[in-house]
Amino acid sequence: MTGWAPSTGNMTDDGWSGAPRFPLPRLTEFAAALLVGMGVPAEDAGPAADLLLLADLRGVDSHGVARLPFYAARFRRGLIRADAELRVLREGPVTLAFDAGDGFGLTQAPRAMERCIAKAEETGLCLATVGHSNHFGIAGAYALMAARHGLGGMAMTNASTLVVPTFGAQPMLGTNPIAVAVPTSPDGATPPLVLDMSTSAVAWGKIEVARRAGSQIPLGWAVDEAGVPTTDPFAARWLTPLGGPRETSGHKGYGLGLIVDLLCGPLAGAAWGAHVLGSRGPNRPANVGHAFMAWRIDAFRDLDEFFADLGAMLAELRATPPAPGHEATGVLVPGDPEARAEAVNRRLGVPVRPPVVEELRTLASELGVPFDLDADPIGIS
Amino acid sequence: MTGWAPSTGNMTDDGWSGAPRFPLPRLTEFAAALLVGMGVPAEDAGPAADLLLLADLRGVDSHGVARLPFYAARFRRGLIRADAELRVLREGPVTLAFDAGDGFGLTQAPRAMERCIAKAEETGLCLATVGHSNHFGIAGAYALMAARHGLGGMAMTNASTLVVPTFGAQPMLGTNPIAVAVPTSPDGATPPLVLDMSTSAVAWGKIEVARRAGSQIPLGWAVDEAGVPTTDPFAARWLTPLGGPRETSGHKGYGLGLIVDLLCGPLAGAAWGAHVLGSRGPNRPANVGHAFMAWRIDAFRDLDEFFADLGAMLAELRATPPAPGHEATGVLVPGDPEARAEAVNRRLGVPVRPPVVEELRTLASELGVPFDLDADPIGIS
Repeated sequence: MTGWAPSTGNMTDDGWSGAPRFPLPRLTEFAAALLVGMGVPAEDAGPAADLLLLADLRGVDSHGVARLPFYAARFRRGLIRADAELRVLREGPVTLAFDAGDGFGLTQAPRAMERCIAKAEETGLCLATVGHSNHFGIAGAYALMAARHGLGGMAMTNASTLVVPTFGAQPMLGTNPIAVAVPTSPDGATPPLVLDMSTSAVAWGKIEVARRAGSQIPLGWAVDEAGVPTTDPFAARWLTPLGGPRETSGHKGYGLGLIVDLLCGPLAGAAWGAHVLGSRGPNRPANVGHAFMAWRIDAFRDLDEFFADLGAMLAELRATPPAPGHEATGVLVPGDPEARAEAVNRRLGVPVRPPVVEELRTLASELGVPFDLDADPIGIS
Repeated sequence: MTGWAPSTGNMTDDGWSGAPRFPLPRLTEFAAALLVGMGVPAEDAGPAADLLLLADLRGVDSHGVARLPFYAARFRRGLIRADAELRVLREGPVTLAFDAGDGFGLTQAPRAMERCIAKAEETGLCLATVGHSNHFGIAGAYALMAARHGLGGMAMTNASTLVVPTFGAQPMLGTNPIAVAVPTSPDGATPPLVLDMSTSAVAWGKIEVARRAGSQIPLGWAVDEAGVPTTDPFAARWLTPLGGPRETSGHKGYGLGLIVDLLCGPLAGAAWGAHVLGSRGPNRPANVGHAFMAWRIDAFRDLDEFFADLGAMLAELRATPPAPGHEATGVLVPGDPEARAEAVNRRLGVPVRPPVVEELRTLASELGVPFDLDADPIGIS
């Protein structure tokens, strides 16, 4: 593994061989057309496609256009409601509790975060929960929304069950990501600091990559059917929390995943644990929950002082003497690899794995959307 | 390793052999007398001693009375100011930025959290930062303060440098803990859910335990002087972030530690990274920073619904089928081991390692405080 790749896919993984790149506007337009084909109102499809493409741009391809067939299947089964309203269940001076009405995550979650940001801009801080939602893409996108408004932001979601608790043999938690973002300059001239991480050791995509490559996985990523840690990607059945087994403090990753589930499940009035339904679950809405937070930096510190200190902090981290074998990469800060991927992909076009291109071709045909991506590849990576 | 012990010490570690137990009130009174001897005002010493003893009660003995000689040395050098005021630098409707004036962490931090809780009770939510503070004991104590008021609570602090960033050869972060607590019943009849974890793989105490036991440490806990991962506790020089090396996602633990440092350093107007001074640093105040949050549960959900869902969630987690070899322990939830330790220690008395008893004897002599713990041990563990 080279560099500090996003956890769900990078250009050094296999499966990218011969991957075409597409111009961002064309791919966004195509994704939006597919969403309209699924029933998403035209005015919502564009912003939702922008969010999807942000994942592809930042190298988190598992949460980008590759997700469209998954969304389509759930729209088709009526498990995502394209016409759902975002209802406010409770509103306090600085708190919001939403019900997303089993609507589309990529539409409802941004609306909720926008309200959260507006409230935080007014009062300094807002915490919002969203219940009865669906898969919302990358958590980092919502934290970034706050950072683009000059605020600190946090986003969490629970997810369908894939992770065993420490000492457990059955999955009881999703990969339950936590994202935090802050701006690094007053005018947005420098990329925000963005941490976007699942609370599992790795994403399931890493297991799939090892299967395709026929390589072993490190101990600590996954357990087998019986709950025993395994290095065989084909025996891997469930993921381990961040930290791996108890000896290397996997109980901390488990604890973090549980706190995310607590805020997004019981606090948000959504499902939790094994009740959050995924693609293989019963024919009921997923009832995913999210939690969002935004805060004004100048509620705590003068902006110029904050940016000066943060800039010095990040510069010091990047200047840390590297450990042997890591001289080429050096020490990075969260969001560096994603920001680099975004810069490359904006310039060269957004890469899409060939199998995903074929799935999108099939989906376009099913939805009666013209598939003309073939005409547009602007490079072969 | 048996059970799910707190990361900084447990009764199965070595160093406990022949450890006497002392009645809680007697040990608290003695700790308070020592604090008064250091210059802490009498009205502050009692509550500070209660906080210290909470760590010992919950099995986190590294942050309990064993810390008193460390505090005494810093008071003596004038690096902790017993008479410091807690000043409000900024106050918004739901935000507070404090300056602790290089005061005693165990006095200033509870005052700040009390204000944070009061504001959250009024408006639903509060986020508070504290700059120019000192070591504040266990982060969990502050999250628990909120839970005892029926609120959700979060507490973070930065700390003196001990943890290398991913790919780095030098420490740039402290163990930067995150604690979250929520009540599990409306009347406090059941113990709160408490996650209290450092963002390093383990606490330094684990390395010391391995040194005393002459045993190897798991790969992923620590690196040597050159920044190379090591299994030799005597070669271990710095700690690794939660997750260990990059292959097992140590960059996530690094990212979490960095976010804690961002909130407690640049946002709080305190030091960050290598600038947070510890016992071996230059003769300047530590300038530790903290961040606290509290929120009303009923700002988001009816209390009875929340407690019903949370209770079901925790019951389901505890009922997870155990993995092979973990049938005796079963699946726990965060705070279970600490709550069990507290129940035992309240009943049998608080254990103190014999070397710590001797250090306290010396300290008492230096401070002119009568040492009469010898008369009081109520059991030998």
